[in-house]
Amino acid sequence: MNNRRSSPTAPAKTPSASPWKASHERQRDREVKRDAVIRAAAREFNRKGYHNTSLDDIAARLEVTKPTVYYYVTSKEQLLFQCFVAGVERIRAAFRDVRALEVPGRERLNAVLRRYGEAVASEFGWCMVRAEEQDLSPSMSRHIKALKSEIDHGIRRLIREGVQDGSIHPCDPKMTAFALAGALNWIAHWYREDQSLTGVQIAEAFVAVFEAGLRPRGNGAQVAAPQQVPRRRTRRTTAALAR
Amino acid sequence: MNNRRSSPTAPAKTPSASPWKASHERQRDREVKRDAVIRAAAREFNRKGYHNTSLDDIAARLEVTKPTVYYYVTSKEQLLFQCFVAGVERIRAAFRDVRALEVPGRERLNAVLRRYGEAVASEFGWCMVRAEEQDLSPSMSRHIKALKSEIDHGIRRLIREGVQDGSIHPCDPKMTAFALAGALNWIAHWYREDQSLTGVQIAEAFVAVFEAGLRPRGNGAQVAAPQQVPRRRTRRTTAALAR
Repeated sequence: MNNRRSSPTAPAKTPSASPWKASHERQRDREVKRDAVIRAAAREFNRKGYHNTSLDDIAARLEVTKPTVYYYVTSKEQLLFQCFVAGVERIRAAFRDVRALEVPGRERLNAVLRRYGEAVASEFGWCMVRAEEQDLSPSMSRHIKALKSEIDHGIRRLIREGVQDGSIHPCDPKMTAFALAGALNWIAHWYREDQSLTGVQIAEAFVAVFEAGLRPRGNGAQVAAPQQVPRRRTRRTTAALAR
Repeated sequence: MNNRRSSPTAPAKTPSASPWKASHERQRDREVKRDAVIRAAAREFNRKGYHNTSLDDIAARLEVTKPTVYYYVTSKEQLLFQCFVAGVERIRAAFRDVRALEVPGRERLNAVLRRYGEAVASEFGWCMVRAEEQDLSPSMSRHIKALKSEIDHGIRRLIREGVQDGSIHPCDPKMTAFALAGALNWIAHWYREDQSLTGVQIAEAFVAVFEAGLRPRGNGAQVAAPQQVPRRRTRRTTAALAR
């Protein structure tokens, strides 16, 4: 608890009254800097691979010294783990956000899949899909497996709920979850931020495919045609088996 | 040309008449053995990773000496490349097979996607999706990129043909190809041969999802419900971000 302002007799202290920052400000400052370290690490791992990236590279990218980086994380391994967590946390937040929504299961699922796609297309995508292969400690590996399993089971649960409320056609929840998550995970293999579409646009385009599949829609179906989204700068990429 | 039997005056030669095999038999024999080497390599790469697998391991698995392996391939690098080609060749064969079929584009696409899924669920799956990352020579890398691009463009072409003949709902062929191929490629990250479904069953289940998506089908739609396929031995796996 920060009681600095709790006494009615203490003079009102403005932020500029002391050359030292208030403890909550220092805390927020630390969090902002820690986030910057994790984000810079994610970009370097993505660009050069985990084993080819040193803490020196990450420090250089941030224009700080290596000890400064060590102030926020204890090791490169922990950094990779934190990058994984930062990406996955976006998906976990999506699950929390849809929990209270009074909409059919399929819409809750779509909302999660959009955020999932955006997360994989973010700077954390590489770490999200590749962290587990990088010889992490047993405890970190267990933690990663547990978080992946939580997300997998969350998707299956939303599929089952959608089937129950009639918004999703009866299907095998496990295989359907594998197909949807696989398509989204693969984004990390081919997507680069300089490509023609944003992560949001890609996630939207994918959900449109998942939503109604390849078949032409019947007359009665209220399905929006997947849109040709506006292009940004173009760069050639290959989908099949890429990157 | 093998003219051994071309002279009408020569006595009919049975395979057992000479202790040496006929040249076409030797050729076939060599191909069978070469296939066995490639298949054994694919299994080892899949199980232990490319860098952790030696030609000794592959020789041991085949119960032959390392020089015997070298008789069929010149290097481990070439072996990985051949594993990639062996997997991808199944997809290329599927494209050739559907070319002459007088069926709508979506059915031709589905036939290719089924064979694609089976190929990725085969022993070659790991090599198909991971070969390019393994520091191969520039010429092999170029060859791999070209084959991937050929497959990617083949899928986009079938999608466009399906849209043109009305069997596929209008969509962005590139993004749709990315979603479909991504889901199939990801199979290599989670599927192991000892799992509850065969590669054929998984490919079938995935195509059912691609076919009609998550939405409940309208009254008029002639879409078969994705079937709960019969189980083999079960093993727990996680879809999201797995392997």
